[in-house]
Amino acid sequence: MEKIFELINFDERGFVVAIAQDVKGEVLMVAWMNKEAIEMTLKTGKMHYYSRSRKKLWLKGEESGNFQFVKEIYIDCDGDALLFKVEQKGGACHEGYYTCFFRKFEGNEFKIVDKKIFEPKEVYK
Amino acid sequence: MEKIFELINFDERGFVVAIAQDVKGEVLMVAWMNKEAIEMTLKTGKMHYYSRSRKKLWLKGEESGNFQFVKEIYIDCDGDALLFKVEQKGGACHEGYYTCFFRKFEGNEFKIVDKKIFEPKEVYK
Repeated sequence: MEKIFELINFDERGFVVAIAQDVKGEVLMVAWMNKEAIEMTLKTGKMHYYSRSRKKLWLKGEESGNFQFVKEIYIDCDGDALLFKVEQKGGACHEGYYTCFFRKFEGNEFKIVDKKIFEPKEVYK
Repeated sequence: MEKIFELINFDERGFVVAIAQDVKGEVLMVAWMNKEAIEMTLKTGKMHYYSRSRKKLWLKGEESGNFQFVKEIYIDCDGDALLFKVEQKGGACHEGYYTCFFRKFEGNEFKIVDKKIFEPKEVYK
């Protein structure tokens, strides 16, 4: 497992950018990972991130059940970003959408262009 | 144009994460933008980033001619990441590949899974 770290350039805080993209191509979210998040992701096959606001490891879906199952992992040329192709259970976004990128810039403002697939109040209690 | 900034949460350095994805679905690169990079991107229709290493605005393709023409712009739920769907001229990666994510984690190591489409030495002089 340690060989994955050879090419990763963690920033001065120990983080690397992680993009989750569903296997069909839709970009779902961007978050941060530290070494532990990467280790747990590899070990379990489920995306783990590092929450900068809560300052702790975060299993995506731990509360909602909306896990992301890892299918493929890529690294960029500089080693400071990882791309995870995943199967998304339910929706990725805590606001109830499939993707966190549910707002599109149109006519000089961001407009919601997606439909909610779950009601956050019913999922996060 | 200013309305685009209402939802963007720049970090303490004044940056926001920007993902470029080609219109067919392939994730090309991740970089940073500041306010000026976003303004120039909107004004010209070509991706501009902020280079943290060179500490300056950077028109993607300024040297290589490999411009990214913006087709759609999305923002994530937290407002700290932007997703640009682009048409990529040539290749996005300064190492000569179409995408910067040309290495895949397989059998406990990252392996190059893409083919070079240009020779960097011939493009960056």
